[in-house]
Amino acid sequence: MTGAPASQVRVRLDLAYDGTDFHGWAPQPQRRTVAGVLTDALGRVFGPGAVSGLTVAGRTDAGVHATGQVCHVDLPDDGWRRFGDTLVRRLAGLLPPDVRVTAAAAVPAEFDARFSALARRYRYRVGDAPYGVDPLQRRYTLAWPRPLDVARMSEAGAGLIGEHDFAAFCRRREGATTIRTLTRLDWHRDADGVLVATVVADAFCHSMVRSLVGAMLAVGDGRRPVMWPRELLSRGARAGEVQVAPPHGLILVGVDYPATPEQWAAQARLARRRRA
Amino acid sequence: MTGAPASQVRVRLDLAYDGTDFHGWAPQPQRRTVAGVLTDALGRVFGPGAVSGLTVAGRTDAGVHATGQVCHVDLPDDGWRRFGDTLVRRLAGLLPPDVRVTAAAAVPAEFDARFSALARRYRYRVGDAPYGVDPLQRRYTLAWPRPLDVARMSEAGAGLIGEHDFAAFCRRREGATTIRTLTRLDWHRDADGVLVATVVADAFCHSMVRSLVGAMLAVGDGRRPVMWPRELLSRGARAGEVQVAPPHGLILVGVDYPATPEQWAAQARLARRRRA
Repeated sequence: MTGAPASQVRVRLDLAYDGTDFHGWAPQPQRRTVAGVLTDALGRVFGPGAVSGLTVAGRTDAGVHATGQVCHVDLPDDGWRRFGDTLVRRLAGLLPPDVRVTAAAAVPAEFDARFSALARRYRYRVGDAPYGVDPLQRRYTLAWPRPLDVARMSEAGAGLIGEHDFAAFCRRREGATTIRTLTRLDWHRDADGVLVATVVADAFCHSMVRSLVGAMLAVGDGRRPVMWPRELLSRGARAGEVQVAPPHGLILVGVDYPATPEQWAAQARLARRRRA
Repeated sequence: MTGAPASQVRVRLDLAYDGTDFHGWAPQPQRRTVAGVLTDALGRVFGPGAVSGLTVAGRTDAGVHATGQVCHVDLPDDGWRRFGDTLVRRLAGLLPPDVRVTAAAAVPAEFDARFSALARRYRYRVGDAPYGVDPLQRRYTLAWPRPLDVARMSEAGAGLIGEHDFAAFCRRREGATTIRTLTRLDWHRDADGVLVATVVADAFCHSMVRSLVGAMLAVGDGRRPVMWPRELLSRGARAGEVQVAPPHGLILVGVDYPATPEQWAAQARLARRRRA
């Protein structure tokens, strides 16, 4: 190596994508992933190899969508000065239409898209009409073959609020905690009659939202009692009888962060310790 | 022929479709059309050849969507008695997910989906954000590369309300009138910042909504003065400088009918005479 590395700037990117044709967020060889497509496009602006440390708030699975995903990346200072102001419009031309960078902003290096986050917000959409789902919404709405009782589902959701060990709803990962704090889980029917769940927690373990939804669908169509999802919390291990709901009804709609760099750093320390 | 033909019942079908992968409504040999796919599915329920007189309210072009399309069809009386109550659910299983029959009801024979209609309601959706269009809405929302002024576009639209010869905005058809009554044409930004036009008329000639939208987009991004679309009304012939907006932003959202069979018949007589 000759010379010091170019100085870098941390950049927060806000993202939206249609997960249908992606193998999820995380880069995988030979597979089309959101991180892969985004890295390519950033490389075309800043030069390949100039993009480092891409880190995302919510590592969405294959088929899961996002309207409010957040990531950070470290970019060369000189490139950012040159292209920063027009980056969103440049990326609109370079990215395929199923992924969009909706905002790009330089942030203090304390910002960590993953560990500074206070909460992740998801929506899950289910249609239970006899005809199925509006064709224009079918890529992001699950068609359910039986009528669903939204009041029962909301009651089941309310029973899960709080800090719990969600092991029953998580795919096991060695040494990782499955304790999470669920702050919101409710259902409503929107103007089109589609059932929409809002699910908010500090963080989610793998397949957790879709497992929670799967359990509540069993309550909603009468196959399980209202208190069944809550009772599973005492299980301490993955509950095999919970069906994981399909990915295409799930949308990451937002990520919450504290207001200041000091709080970003403090939250990151806290989250790293908790996750370890 | 031995024996009288089986007696028939007229059935109103309400339809929704994603026009992306259809060559429009009207049946065409070797092409996937909404009418073709629907006729196949009805034939599988009632027997091929038992389905006759399929007539639609709005013959949408290739790529145009519908959430509130209406058609009528004549079905065998005995088949209807057998399958009528469960037809919507049966068709949900037989039709591809990009077309749905949302309702099916026997109606008096005076009902004519096309000629009894009082009005057709369309929406056109355009996003003008620097990043383009939300990926989940991109199949039914046009991405416009320049900022649009919604107040100018609404003002341009207001200038077109009323009964006029819309020849400037119509593809010419020999011997057919291009006089239409436009009752609504306004724009608003929805909660996501997408510009949405609502366009209502007694009927539309071919490519009329998309030509009106194309003219208003030229006003919205400042290339044409606000009164330009209105001035084109005096043209009396197709205005070549009007760009026809792409089909994928257009959605037929509803069709209005009078309340009673007597009014259906009267409206049909009136519309047939006017169109001839």
